[in-house]
Amino acid sequence: MNQLVGGIEAGGTKFNCAIGTAPGDLRAETRIATTMPAETIRAVIEFFRAQPRVDAIGIGSFGPIDRARGLITTTPKPGWANTDLAGAIQRALVVPVVFDTDVNIAALGEHTWGAARGLDNFIYLTIGTGIGGGGKINGKLLHGLIHPEMGHIRIPHDWNDDPFPGCCPFHGDCLEGLASGPAIEKRWGHHAENLARDHRAWKLQARYLAHALANLICAFSPERIIVGGGLMQQIDLLPMIQTQTRELLNGYIHAPEILERIAEYIVAPELGNRAGVLGAIALAQHIVALKA
Amino acid sequence: MNQLVGGIEAGGTKFNCAIGTAPGDLRAETRIATTMPAETIRAVIEFFRAQPRVDAIGIGSFGPIDRARGLITTTPKPGWANTDLAGAIQRALVVPVVFDTDVNIAALGEHTWGAARGLDNFIYLTIGTGIGGGGKINGKLLHGLIHPEMGHIRIPHDWNDDPFPGCCPFHGDCLEGLASGPAIEKRWGHHAENLARDHRAWKLQARYLAHALANLICAFSPERIIVGGGLMQQIDLLPMIQTQTRELLNGYIHAPEILERIAEYIVAPELGNRAGVLGAIALAQHIVALKA
Repeated sequence: MNQLVGGIEAGGTKFNCAIGTAPGDLRAETRIATTMPAETIRAVIEFFRAQPRVDAIGIGSFGPIDRARGLITTTPKPGWANTDLAGAIQRALVVPVVFDTDVNIAALGEHTWGAARGLDNFIYLTIGTGIGGGGKINGKLLHGLIHPEMGHIRIPHDWNDDPFPGCCPFHGDCLEGLASGPAIEKRWGHHAENLARDHRAWKLQARYLAHALANLICAFSPERIIVGGGLMQQIDLLPMIQTQTRELLNGYIHAPEILERIAEYIVAPELGNRAGVLGAIALAQHIVALKA
Repeated sequence: MNQLVGGIEAGGTKFNCAIGTAPGDLRAETRIATTMPAETIRAVIEFFRAQPRVDAIGIGSFGPIDRARGLITTTPKPGWANTDLAGAIQRALVVPVVFDTDVNIAALGEHTWGAARGLDNFIYLTIGTGIGGGGKINGKLLHGLIHPEMGHIRIPHDWNDDPFPGCCPFHGDCLEGLASGPAIEKRWGHHAENLARDHRAWKLQARYLAHALANLICAFSPERIIVGGGLMQQIDLLPMIQTQTRELLNGYIHAPEILERIAEYIVAPELGNRAGVLGAIALAQHIVALKA
Protein backbone atom coordinates (compact mmCIF):
# COMPACT_ATOMS: atom_id res chain seq x y z
CA MET A 1 0.00 0.00 0.00
CA ASN A 2 2.73 2.52 -0.79
CA GLN A 3 1.97 3.34 -4.40
CA LEU A 4 1.80 6.99 -5.32
CA VAL A 5 -1.83 7.57 -6.22
CA GLY A 6 -4.33 10.39 -6.53
CA GLY A 7 -7.49 11.01 -4.56
CA ILE A 8 -10.46 13.26 -5.29
CA GLU A 9 -13.24 14.05 -2.85
CA ALA A 10 -15.82 15.53 -5.20
CA GLY A 11 -18.16 17.62 -3.08
CA GLY A 12 -21.00 19.94 -3.93
CA THR A 13 -19.01 22.95 -2.68
CA LYS A 14 -15.42 21.99 -3.48
CA PHE A 15 -13.27 19.24 -4.92
CA ASN A 16 -10.43 18.21 -2.59
CA CYS A 17 -7.61 16.68 -4.63
CA ALA A 18 -4.34 15.18 -3.43
CA ILE A 19 -1.56 12.83 -4.38
CA GLY A 20 0.32 10.71 -1.90
CA THR A 21 0.54 7.34 -0.25
CA ALA A 22 -0.77 7.85 3.31
CA PRO A 23 -1.92 10.53 5.79
CA GLY A 24 1.67 11.46 6.64
CA ASP A 25 2.77 11.46 3.03
CA LEU A 26 0.55 13.76 1.00
CA ARG A 27 2.85 15.21 -1.68
CA ALA A 28 0.43 17.80 -3.03
CA GLU A 29 -3.07 18.98 -2.21
CA THR A 30 -5.54 21.46 -3.66
CA ARG A 31 -9.10 22.63 -3.26
CA ILE A 32 -11.10 23.55 -6.32
CA ALA A 33 -14.45 25.32 -6.08
CA THR A 34 -17.33 23.30 -7.53
CA THR A 35 -18.65 25.53 -10.30
CA MET A 36 -19.93 24.03 -13.56
CA PRO A 37 -18.74 20.54 -14.53
CA ALA A 38 -16.51 21.44 -17.50
CA GLU A 39 -14.68 24.18 -15.61
CA THR A 40 -14.31 22.18 -12.39
CA ILE A 41 -13.11 19.01 -14.12
CA ARG A 42 -10.64 21.03 -16.21
CA ALA A 43 -9.07 22.45 -13.04
CA VAL A 44 -8.85 18.98 -11.51
CA ILE A 45 -7.08 17.66 -14.60
CA GLU A 46 -4.64 20.60 -14.58
CA PHE A 47 -3.77 19.88 -10.95
CA PHE A 48 -2.93 16.23 -11.64
CA ARG A 49 -1.04 17.07 -14.87
CA ALA A 50 1.28 19.31 -12.84
CA GLN A 51 2.14 16.44 -10.47
CA PRO A 52 4.30 13.32 -10.78
CA ARG A 53 2.48 10.51 -12.56
CA VAL A 54 0.19 8.43 -10.30
CA ASP A 55 -0.72 4.75 -10.69
CA ALA A 56 -4.45 5.28 -10.14
CA ILE A 57 -6.98 7.87 -9.01
CA GLY A 58 -9.77 7.23 -6.52
CA ILE A 59 -12.85 9.45 -6.62
CA GLY A 60 -15.52 9.79 -3.99
CA SER A 61 -18.38 11.86 -5.29
CA PHE A 62 -21.55 13.54 -4.12
CA GLY A 63 -24.50 11.69 -5.54
CA PRO A 64 -26.60 9.97 -6.43
CA ILE A 65 -24.02 8.19 -8.54
CA ASP A 66 -23.89 5.27 -10.95
CA ARG A 67 -20.78 3.60 -9.65
CA ALA A 68 -20.24 1.15 -12.49
CA ARG A 69 -20.54 3.85 -15.15
CA GLY A 70 -18.70 6.55 -13.19
CA LEU A 71 -21.56 9.03 -13.43
CA ILE A 72 -23.17 11.56 -11.15
CA THR A 73 -26.83 10.89 -12.03
CA THR A 74 -29.97 12.65 -10.77
CA THR A 75 -28.48 15.38 -8.60
CA PRO A 76 -30.55 18.56 -8.35
CA LYS A 77 -27.25 20.52 -8.41
CA PRO A 78 -27.51 22.77 -11.49
CA GLY A 79 -25.53 21.48 -14.45
CA TRP A 80 -24.25 18.35 -12.76
CA ALA A 81 -26.96 15.79 -13.56
CA ASN A 82 -25.58 12.94 -15.70
CA THR A 83 -21.97 14.13 -15.50
CA ASP A 84 -19.42 11.53 -16.62
CA LEU A 85 -16.94 12.47 -13.91
CA ALA A 86 -14.83 9.30 -13.76
CA GLY A 87 -14.71 8.94 -17.54
CA ALA A 88 -13.61 12.52 -18.14
CA ILE A 89 -10.71 12.20 -15.72
CA GLN A 90 -9.72 8.76 -16.87
CA ARG A 91 -9.62 9.81 -20.54
CA ALA A 92 -7.69 13.02 -19.89
CA LEU A 93 -5.07 11.52 -17.59
CA VAL A 94 -4.97 7.97 -19.07
CA VAL A 95 -4.89 6.38 -15.65
CA PRO A 96 -7.10 3.76 -13.93
CA VAL A 97 -9.92 5.52 -12.08
CA VAL A 98 -12.14 4.01 -9.38
CA PHE A 99 -15.36 5.65 -8.29
CA ASP A 100 -17.59 5.49 -5.23
CA THR A 101 -19.72 7.76 -3.04
CA ASP A 102 -18.17 10.54 -0.94
CA VAL A 103 -19.37 8.84 2.23
CA ASN A 104 -18.03 5.41 1.28
CA ILE A 105 -14.56 6.80 0.59
CA ALA A 106 -14.60 8.70 3.88
CA ALA A 107 -15.59 5.42 5.54
CA LEU A 108 -12.71 3.70 3.76
CA GLY A 109 -10.30 6.41 4.91
CA GLU A 110 -11.39 5.90 8.51
CA HIS A 111 -11.13 2.12 8.07
CA THR A 112 -7.62 2.35 6.64
CA TRP A 113 -6.11 4.96 8.95
CA GLY A 114 -8.74 6.20 11.41
CA ALA A 115 -11.54 5.34 13.81
CA ALA A 116 -12.75 2.20 12.01
CA ARG A 117 -9.46 0.28 11.81
CA GLY A 118 -10.05 -3.45 12.04
CA LEU A 119 -13.85 -3.25 11.96
CA ASP A 120 -15.87 -5.32 9.47
CA ASN A 121 -19.16 -3.58 10.33
CA PHE A 122 -19.38 0.16 10.82
CA ILE A 123 -21.32 3.16 9.58
CA TYR A 124 -19.90 6.56 8.61
CA LEU A 125 -22.43 9.39 8.72
CA THR A 126 -21.80 12.96 7.61
CA ILE A 127 -23.94 15.87 8.77
CA GLY A 128 -23.46 19.04 6.74
CA THR A 129 -25.03 20.69 3.72
CA GLY A 130 -26.46 17.26 3.08
CA ILE A 131 -26.68 14.17 5.26
CA GLY A 132 -25.28 10.93 3.93
CA GLY A 133 -24.05 7.59 5.14
CA GLY A 134 -21.83 4.76 4.03
CA GLY A 135 -19.65 2.18 5.66
CA LYS A 136 -18.62 -1.42 5.60
CA ILE A 137 -20.87 -4.36 6.37
CA ASN A 138 -19.45 -7.87 6.39
CA GLY A 139 -16.06 -6.41 5.51
CA LYS A 140 -17.06 -4.64 2.30
CA LEU A 141 -18.28 -1.15 1.41
CA LEU A 142 -22.06 -0.78 1.24
CA HIS A 143 -23.46 -0.66 -2.29
CA GLY A 144 -26.44 -2.90 -2.96
CA LEU A 145 -28.96 -1.80 -5.55
CA ILE A 146 -27.40 1.67 -5.97
CA HIS A 147 -25.99 2.99 -2.71
CA PRO A 148 -27.47 3.93 0.66
CA GLU A 149 -29.20 7.30 1.03
CA MET A 150 -29.21 7.39 4.81
CA GLY A 151 -29.98 11.10 4.93
CA HIS A 152 -33.44 10.39 3.59
CA ILE A 153 -34.79 8.12 6.32
CA ARG A 154 -37.85 9.43 8.15
CA ILE A 155 -37.74 9.90 11.90
CA PRO A 156 -40.35 11.12 14.41
CA HIS A 157 -41.07 14.82 13.93
CA ASP A 158 -43.09 16.52 16.65
CA TRP A 159 -44.88 19.28 14.73
CA ASN A 160 -46.01 21.02 17.92
CA ASP A 161 -42.48 21.35 19.19
CA ASP A 162 -40.93 22.00 15.76
CA PRO A 163 -43.39 23.37 13.21
CA PHE A 164 -40.65 23.68 10.56
CA PRO A 165 -41.93 21.49 7.70
CA GLY A 166 -38.49 20.32 6.56
CA CYS A 167 -36.65 21.39 3.42
CA CYS A 168 -35.96 18.22 1.45
CA PRO A 169 -37.37 18.81 -2.04
CA PHE A 170 -38.23 15.10 -2.28
CA HIS A 171 -39.39 14.19 1.21
CA GLY A 172 -40.02 17.36 3.23
CA ASP A 173 -39.23 16.30 6.78
CA CYS A 174 -36.86 13.40 6.28
CA LEU A 175 -33.64 13.47 8.33
CA GLU A 176 -31.85 15.71 5.81
CA GLY A 177 -34.94 17.91 5.57
CA LEU A 178 -34.91 18.44 9.35
CA ALA A 179 -31.26 18.31 10.38
CA SER A 180 -28.98 19.40 7.53
CA GLY A 181 -27.22 22.77 7.49
CA PRO A 182 -29.84 24.34 5.18
CA ALA A 183 -32.63 23.02 7.45
CA ILE A 184 -31.07 24.73 10.47
CA GLU A 185 -30.60 27.96 8.54
CA LYS A 186 -34.17 27.98 7.25
CA ARG A 187 -35.71 27.07 10.59
CA TRP A 188 -33.84 29.58 12.74
CA GLY A 189 -32.95 32.29 10.22
CA HIS A 190 -29.25 32.01 10.97
CA HIS A 191 -26.43 29.92 9.62
CA ALA A 192 -25.51 27.14 12.07
CA GLU A 193 -22.12 28.76 12.67
CA ASN A 194 -23.86 31.85 14.02
CA LEU A 195 -26.12 30.10 16.51
CA ALA A 196 -24.99 30.38 20.15
CA ARG A 197 -23.77 27.23 21.84
CA ASP A 198 -26.77 27.30 24.19
CA HIS A 199 -29.35 28.00 21.44
CA ARG A 200 -32.18 25.51 21.64
CA ALA A 201 -31.48 24.59 18.00
CA TRP A 202 -28.76 22.24 19.22
CA LYS A 203 -31.00 20.29 21.55
CA LEU A 204 -33.42 19.69 18.69
CA GLN A 205 -30.54 18.82 16.36
CA ALA A 206 -29.20 16.26 18.84
CA ARG A 207 -32.64 14.68 19.17
CA TYR A 208 -33.03 14.23 15.41
CA LEU A 209 -29.55 12.83 15.02
CA ALA A 210 -30.00 10.49 18.00
CA HIS A 211 -33.18 9.15 16.39
CA ALA A 212 -31.24 8.56 13.19
CA LEU A 213 -28.41 6.79 14.99
CA ALA A 214 -30.75 4.63 17.05
CA ASN A 215 -32.48 3.59 13.82
CA LEU A 216 -29.17 2.78 12.12
CA ILE A 217 -28.09 0.74 15.17
CA CYS A 218 -31.36 -1.25 15.04
CA ALA A 219 -31.01 -1.73 11.29
CA PHE A 220 -27.32 -2.63 10.95
CA SER A 221 -26.07 -3.57 14.42
CA PRO A 222 -22.77 -1.85 13.56
CA GLU A 223 -19.66 -2.24 15.70
CA ARG A 224 -19.17 1.54 15.65
CA ILE A 225 -20.69 4.69 14.14
CA ILE A 226 -18.49 7.56 13.02
CA VAL A 227 -20.26 10.93 12.76
CA GLY A 228 -18.52 13.69 10.82
CA GLY A 229 -19.42 16.69 8.70
CA GLY A 230 -19.41 20.42 9.21
CA LEU A 231 -22.24 20.61 11.73
CA MET A 232 -20.37 18.31 14.11
CA GLN A 233 -17.91 21.18 14.66
CA GLN A 234 -20.35 22.23 17.41
CA ILE A 235 -18.48 20.34 20.10
CA ASP A 236 -21.47 19.85 22.43
CA LEU A 237 -23.33 17.90 19.78
CA LEU A 238 -21.47 14.58 19.88
CA PRO A 239 -21.88 14.00 23.66
CA MET A 240 -25.55 15.02 23.44
CA ILE A 241 -26.08 12.52 20.63
CA GLN A 242 -24.26 9.77 22.51
CA THR A 243 -26.45 10.24 25.59
CA GLN A 244 -29.73 10.54 23.71
CA THR A 245 -29.05 7.57 21.44
CA ARG A 246 -28.44 5.39 24.48
CA GLU A 247 -31.63 6.76 26.08
CA LEU A 248 -33.67 6.03 22.97
CA LEU A 249 -32.42 2.44 22.79
CA ASN A 250 -33.35 2.17 26.49
CA GLY A 251 -31.31 -0.89 27.32
CA TYR A 252 -32.91 -3.07 24.66
CA ILE A 253 -29.67 -3.72 22.79
CA HIS A 254 -27.76 -5.42 25.52
CA ALA A 255 -24.19 -4.68 24.47
CA PRO A 256 -21.57 -3.15 26.76
CA GLU A 257 -20.43 -1.04 23.79
CA ILE A 258 -23.76 0.82 24.02
CA LEU A 259 -24.63 0.48 27.71
CA GLU A 260 -21.19 1.28 29.12
CA ARG A 261 -18.94 2.67 26.40
CA ILE A 262 -21.13 4.81 24.18
CA ALA A 263 -18.36 7.45 23.88
CA GLU A 264 -16.19 4.86 22.11
CA TYR A 265 -19.13 3.58 20.07
CA ILE A 266 -20.41 6.82 18.53
CA VAL A 267 -17.27 8.73 17.65
CA ALA A 268 -15.85 11.59 15.58
CA PRO A 269 -13.72 10.79 12.52
CA GLU A 270 -10.03 10.57 13.43
CA LEU A 271 -9.03 11.94 10.03
CA GLY A 272 -11.34 14.94 10.44
CA ASN A 273 -12.20 16.63 7.17
CA ARG A 274 -9.42 14.72 5.39
CA ALA A 275 -11.23 11.37 5.70
CA GLY A 276 -12.65 11.81 2.19
CA VAL A 277 -9.52 12.62 0.23
CA LEU A 278 -7.49 10.06 2.19
CA GLY A 279 -10.15 7.44 1.58
CA ALA A 280 -9.98 8.24 -2.14
CA ILE A 281 -6.25 7.57 -1.95
CA ALA A 282 -6.88 4.29 -0.12
CA LEU A 283 -9.43 3.30 -2.78
CA ALA A 284 -6.92 4.02 -5.56
CA GLN A 285 -4.28 1.94 -3.78
CA HIS A 286 -6.72 -0.97 -3.57
CA ILE A 287 -7.12 -1.13 -7.32
CA VAL A 288 -3.41 -0.81 -7.90
CA ALA A 289 -2.89 -3.73 -5.50
CA LEU A 290 -5.63 -5.74 -7.24
CA LYS A 291 -4.02 -5.18 -10.64
CA ALA A 292 -0.53 -6.02 -9.41
CA MET B 1 -25.87 -29.76 -0.34
CA ASN B 2 -27.74 -33.08 0.04
CA GLN B 3 -26.77 -34.10 3.56
CA LEU B 4 -29.55 -35.20 5.83
CA VAL B 5 -29.69 -32.51 8.51
CA GLY B 6 -32.07 -31.13 11.08
CA GLY B 7 -33.61 -27.67 11.31
CA ILE B 8 -35.28 -25.89 14.20
CA GLU B 9 -37.19 -22.65 13.94
CA ALA B 10 -37.41 -21.68 17.59
CA GLY B 11 -40.30 -19.24 17.87
CA GLY B 12 -42.00 -17.63 20.83
CA THR B 13 -45.20 -19.60 20.15
CA LYS B 14 -43.91 -22.85 18.69
CA PHE B 15 -40.78 -24.68 17.68
CA ASN B 16 -40.92 -26.00 14.11
CA CYS B 17 -38.57 -28.94 13.71
CA ALA B 18 -37.75 -30.98 10.63
CA ILE B 19 -35.18 -33.27 9.10
CA GLY B 20 -34.48 -33.39 5.41
CA THR B 21 -32.29 -32.11 2.62
CA ALA B 22 -34.44 -29.63 0.69
CA PRO B 23 -37.99 -28.23 0.39
CA GLY B 24 -39.14 -31.25 -1.61
CA ASP B 25 -37.41 -33.71 0.69
CA LEU B 26 -38.52 -33.13 4.28
CA ARG B 27 -38.47 -36.61 5.86
CA ALA B 28 -40.17 -35.64 9.13
CA GLU B 29 -41.66 -32.50 10.63
CA THR B 30 -43.21 -31.50 13.92
CA ARG B 31 -44.49 -28.47 15.79
CA ILE B 32 -43.86 -28.19 19.50
CA ALA B 33 -45.60 -25.57 21.62
CA THR B 34 -43.20 -23.15 23.30
CA THR B 35 -43.88 -23.66 27.01
CA MET B 36 -41.02 -23.50 29.51
CA PRO B 37 -37.46 -24.12 28.27
CA ALA B 38 -36.82 -27.52 29.91
CA GLU B 39 -40.09 -29.00 28.68
CA THR B 40 -39.84 -27.54 25.19
CA ILE B 41 -36.22 -28.54 24.67
CA ARG B 42 -36.96 -32.07 25.96
CA ALA B 43 -39.70 -32.48 23.33
CA VAL B 44 -37.35 -31.22 20.61
CA ILE B 45 -34.69 -33.72 21.64
CA GLU B 46 -37.24 -36.55 21.67
CA PHE B 47 -38.33 -35.67 18.14
CA PHE B 48 -34.77 -35.83 16.80
CA ARG B 49 -33.94 -39.03 18.74
CA ALA B 50 -36.82 -40.76 16.99
CA GLN B 51 -35.43 -39.87 13.55
CA PRO B 52 -32.49 -41.15 11.51
CA ARG B 53 -29.22 -39.62 12.60
CA VAL B 54 -28.48 -36.18 11.08
CA ASP B 55 -25.07 -34.66 10.28
CA ALA B 56 -25.86 -31.28 11.87
CA ILE B 57 -28.71 -29.21 13.23
CA GLY B 58 -29.39 -25.58 12.36
CA ILE B 59 -31.34 -23.42 14.79
CA GLY B 60 -32.94 -20.07 14.16
CA SER B 61 -34.20 -18.58 17.38
CA PHE B 62 -36.29 -15.72 18.65
CA GLY B 63 -34.04 -13.24 20.39
CA PRO B 64 -32.15 -11.38 21.39
CA ILE B 65 -29.52 -14.08 21.07
CA ASP B 66 -25.81 -14.49 21.69
CA ARG B 67 -24.88 -16.31 18.53
CA ALA B 68 -21.37 -17.36 19.47
CA ARG B 69 -22.49 -18.82 22.81
CA GLY B 70 -25.77 -20.29 21.50
CA LEU B 71 -27.90 -18.45 24.05
CA ILE B 72 -31.25 -16.69 24.07
CA THR B 73 -30.29 -13.67 26.19
CA THR B 74 -32.50 -10.81 27.45
CA THR B 75 -35.89 -11.88 26.15
CA PRO B 76 -38.85 -10.71 28.24
CA LYS B 77 -40.49 -14.10 27.53
CA PRO B 78 -41.02 -15.69 31.00
CA GLY B 79 -38.46 -18.33 31.83
CA TRP B 80 -36.46 -18.02 28.61
CA ALA B 81 -33.88 -15.37 29.48
CA ASN B 82 -30.33 -16.78 29.34
CA THR B 83 -31.41 -20.15 27.94
CA ASP B 84 -28.55 -22.24 26.55
CA LEU B 85 -30.62 -23.53 23.65
CA ALA B 86 -27.88 -24.58 21.24
CA GLY B 87 -25.76 -26.16 23.99
CA ALA B 88 -28.62 -28.22 25.40
CA ILE B 89 -29.44 -29.68 22.00
CA GLN B 90 -25.83 -30.23 21.03
CA ARG B 91 -25.01 -32.07 24.26
CA ALA B 92 -28.13 -34.26 24.16
CA LEU B 93 -27.84 -35.26 20.50
CA VAL B 94 -24.03 -35.12 20.16
CA VAL B 95 -24.24 -33.39 16.80
CA PRO B 96 -22.79 -30.13 15.45
CA VAL B 97 -25.24 -27.30 16.05
CA VAL B 98 -25.25 -23.90 14.37
CA PHE B 99 -27.25 -21.00 15.74
CA ASP B 100 -28.62 -17.75 14.32
CA THR B 101 -31.67 -15.51 14.56
CA ASP B 102 -35.08 -16.68 13.35
CA VAL B 103 -35.11 -13.91 10.73
CA ASN B 104 -31.62 -14.67 9.44
CA ILE B 105 -32.47 -18.34 8.89
CA ALA B 106 -35.70 -17.40 7.13
CA ALA B 107 -33.61 -15.08 4.97
CA LEU B 108 -31.20 -17.93 4.29
CA GLY B 109 -34.08 -20.23 3.36
CA GLU B 110 -35.36 -17.67 0.86
CA HIS B 111 -31.82 -17.19 -0.46
CA THR B 112 -31.27 -20.92 -0.93
CA TRP B 113 -34.64 -21.93 -2.39
CA GLY B 114 -36.94 -18.90 -2.54
CA ALA B 115 -37.37 -15.24 -3.43
CA ALA B 116 -33.78 -14.16 -2.76
CA ARG B 117 -31.94 -16.67 -4.93
CA GLY B 118 -28.76 -15.18 -6.37
CA LEU B 119 -28.97 -11.93 -4.42
CA ASP B 120 -26.01 -10.68 -2.38
CA ASN B 121 -28.00 -7.84 -0.78
CA PHE B 122 -31.53 -8.31 0.46
CA ILE B 123 -33.62 -7.84 3.59
CA TYR B 124 -36.12 -10.28 5.07
CA LEU B 125 -38.72 -8.69 7.34
CA THR B 126 -41.33 -10.55 9.36
CA ILE B 127 -44.49 -8.88 10.68
CA GLY B 128 -46.31 -10.88 13.32
CA THR B 129 -46.36 -11.12 17.10
CA GLY B 130 -43.05 -9.32 16.86
CA ILE B 131 -41.37 -7.49 14.01
CA GLY B 132 -37.86 -8.51 13.05
CA GLY B 133 -35.49 -8.30 10.15
CA GLY B 134 -32.42 -10.04 8.82
CA GLY B 135 -30.89 -10.68 5.45
CA LYS B 136 -27.67 -10.75 3.53
CA ILE B 137 -25.47 -7.77 2.81
CA ASN B 138 -22.35 -8.19 0.70
CA GLY B 139 -23.16 -11.87 0.36
CA LYS B 140 -23.25 -12.73 4.06
CA LEU B 141 -25.91 -12.83 6.76
CA LEU B 142 -26.21 -9.66 8.85
CA HIS B 143 -24.67 -9.92 12.30
CA GLY B 144 -22.45 -7.01 13.31
CA LEU B 145 -22.21 -6.12 16.99
CA ILE B 146 -25.05 -8.49 17.99
CA HIS B 147 -27.74 -8.72 15.32
CA PRO B 148 -30.18 -6.25 13.80
CA GLU B 149 -33.34 -5.38 15.70
CA MET B 150 -35.23 -3.83 12.79
CA GLY B 151 -38.57 -3.99 14.58
CA HIS B 152 -37.38 -1.33 16.97
CA ILE B 153 -36.68 1.51 14.55
CA ARG B 154 -38.75 4.65 15.10
CA ILE B 155 -40.94 5.99 12.31
CA PRO B 156 -43.23 9.02 12.10
CA HIS B 157 -46.28 8.58 14.32
CA ASP B 158 -49.11 11.09 13.85
CA TRP B 159 -50.64 11.21 17.32
CA ASN B 160 -53.69 13.11 16.07
CA ASP B 161 -54.53 10.45 13.56
CA ASP B 162 -53.46 7.53 15.76
CA PRO B 163 -53.50 8.32 19.50
CA PHE B 164 -52.48 4.75 20.38
CA PRO B 165 -49.21 5.20 22.31
CA GLY B 166 -47.60 1.99 21.10
CA CYS B 167 -47.03 -1.16 23.12
CA CYS B 168 -43.29 -1.83 23.03
CA PRO B 169 -42.18 -2.14 26.67
CA PHE B 170 -38.81 -0.62 25.74
CA HIS B 171 -39.70 2.04 23.18
CA GLY B 172 -43.44 2.66 23.20
CA ASP B 173 -44.18 3.69 19.64
CA CYS B 174 -41.33 2.07 17.72
CA LEU B 175 -42.31 0.05 14.63
CA GLU B 176 -43.08 -3.07 16.65
CA GLY B 177 -44.95 -0.97 19.21
CA LEU B 178 -47.19 0.43 16.46
CA ALA B 179 -47.52 -2.33 13.87
CA SER B 180 -47.09 -5.78 15.47
CA GLY B 181 -50.02 -8.14 16.05
CA PRO B 182 -50.35 -7.14 19.73
CA ALA B 183 -50.29 -3.45 18.73
CA ILE B 184 -53.20 -4.00 16.35
CA GLU B 185 -55.13 -5.95 18.95
CA LYS B 186 -54.60 -3.34 21.68
CA ARG B 187 -55.40 -0.40 19.40
CA TRP B 188 -58.59 -1.77 17.87
CA GLY B 189 -59.77 -4.22 20.53
CA HIS B 190 -59.81 -7.10 18.07
CA HIS B 191 -57.28 -9.64 16.95
CA ALA B 192 -55.98 -8.80 13.46
CA GLU B 193 -57.64 -11.94 12.05
CA ASN B 194 -61.03 -10.57 13.07
CA LEU B 195 -60.69 -7.13 11.48
CA ALA B 196 -62.64 -6.70 8.26
CA ARG B 197 -60.65 -6.33 5.06
CA ASP B 198 -61.87 -2.77 4.69
CA HIS B 199 -61.23 -1.77 8.32
CA ARG B 200 -59.18 1.39 8.49
CA ALA B 201 -56.65 -0.51 10.61
CA TRP B 202 -55.11 -1.84 7.40
CA LYS B 203 -54.53 1.55 5.86
CA LEU B 204 -52.69 2.65 8.98
CA GLN B 205 -50.77 -0.63 9.08
CA ALA B 206 -49.69 -0.20 5.46
CA ARG B 207 -48.51 3.35 6.19
CA TYR B 208 -46.33 2.25 9.11
CA LEU B 209 -44.85 -0.65 7.20
CA ALA B 210 -44.22 1.52 4.15
CA HIS B 211 -42.33 3.98 6.35
CA ALA B 212 -40.25 1.11 7.69
CA LEU B 213 -39.51 -0.23 4.22
CA ALA B 214 -38.62 3.19 2.83
CA ASN B 215 -36.19 3.62 5.74
CA LEU B 216 -34.64 0.21 5.16
CA ILE B 217 -34.26 0.99 1.45
CA CYS B 218 -32.49 4.29 2.28
CA ALA B 219 -30.27 2.55 4.85
CA PHE B 220 -29.27 -0.62 2.99
CA SER B 221 -30.06 -0.07 -0.69
CA PRO B 222 -31.12 -3.73 -0.89
CA GLU B 223 -31.73 -5.51 -4.17
CA ARG B 224 -35.03 -6.86 -2.83
CA ILE B 225 -37.11 -6.88 0.36
CA ILE B 226 -39.07 -9.96 1.37
CA VAL B 227 -41.96 -9.32 3.78
CA GLY B 228 -43.43 -12.28 5.61
CA GLY B 229 -45.09 -13.08 8.92
CA GLY B 230 -48.62 -13.76 10.06
CA LEU B 231 -50.01 -10.27 9.50
CA MET B 232 -49.09 -10.40 5.82
CA GLN B 233 -51.83 -13.03 5.38
CA GLN B 234 -54.10 -10.00 4.85
CA ILE B 235 -53.68 -10.09 1.09
CA ASP B 236 -54.40 -6.41 0.47
CA LEU B 237 -51.45 -5.38 2.63
CA LEU B 238 -48.56 -6.19 0.30
CA PRO B 239 -49.84 -4.14 -2.68
CA MET B 240 -50.69 -1.24 -0.36
CA ILE B 241 -47.17 -1.33 1.06
CA GLN B 242 -45.61 -1.50 -2.39
CA THR B 243 -47.52 1.57 -3.57
CA GLN B 244 -46.94 3.62 -0.43
CA THR B 245 -43.24 2.80 -0.20
CA ARG B 246 -42.75 4.03 -3.75
CA GLU B 247 -44.77 7.16 -2.94
CA LEU B 248 -42.69 7.85 0.17
CA LEU B 249 -39.42 7.53 -1.75
CA ASN B 250 -40.94 9.93 -4.29
CA GLY B 251 -38.61 9.19 -7.16
CA TYR B 252 -35.46 10.02 -5.24
CA ILE B 253 -33.93 6.57 -5.58
CA HIS B 254 -33.70 6.40 -9.30
CA ALA B 255 -33.79 2.65 -9.87
CA PRO B 256 -36.19 0.93 -12.28
CA GLU B 257 -36.63 -1.80 -9.64
CA ILE B 258 -38.43 0.79 -7.49
CA LEU B 259 -39.87 3.15 -10.09
CA GLU B 260 -41.18 0.52 -12.49
CA ARG B 261 -41.10 -2.92 -10.87
CA ILE B 262 -41.96 -2.41 -7.22
CA ALA B 263 -44.10 -5.59 -7.20
CA GLU B 264 -40.96 -7.61 -7.92
CA TYR B 265 -38.91 -5.57 -5.46
CA ILE B 266 -41.07 -5.84 -2.32
CA VAL B 267 -42.28 -9.42 -2.33
CA ALA B 268 -43.79 -12.20 -0.23
CA PRO B 269 -41.60 -15.14 0.81
CA GLU B 270 -41.75 -17.97 -1.72
CA LEU B 271 -41.34 -20.55 1.01
CA GLY B 272 -44.23 -19.08 3.02
CA ASN B 273 -44.20 -20.07 6.68
CA ARG B 274 -41.62 -22.78 5.97
CA ALA B 275 -38.85 -20.28 5.21
CA GLY B 276 -37.59 -20.56 8.80
CA VAL B 277 -37.32 -24.30 9.17
CA LEU B 278 -35.96 -24.69 5.64
CA GLY B 279 -33.41 -21.97 6.31
CA ALA B 280 -32.34 -23.83 9.45
CA ILE B 281 -31.79 -26.88 7.25
CA ALA B 282 -29.78 -24.80 4.79
CA LEU B 283 -27.68 -23.41 7.66
CA ALA B 284 -26.96 -26.93 8.94
CA GLN B 285 -25.94 -28.02 5.45
CA HIS B 286 -23.52 -25.09 5.24
CA ILE B 287 -21.60 -26.24 8.30
CA VAL B 288 -21.53 -29.84 7.13
CA ALA B 289 -20.11 -28.60 3.82
CA LEU B 290 -17.55 -26.43 5.63
CA LYS B 291 -16.38 -29.37 7.74
CA ALA B 292 -16.18 -31.75 4.79
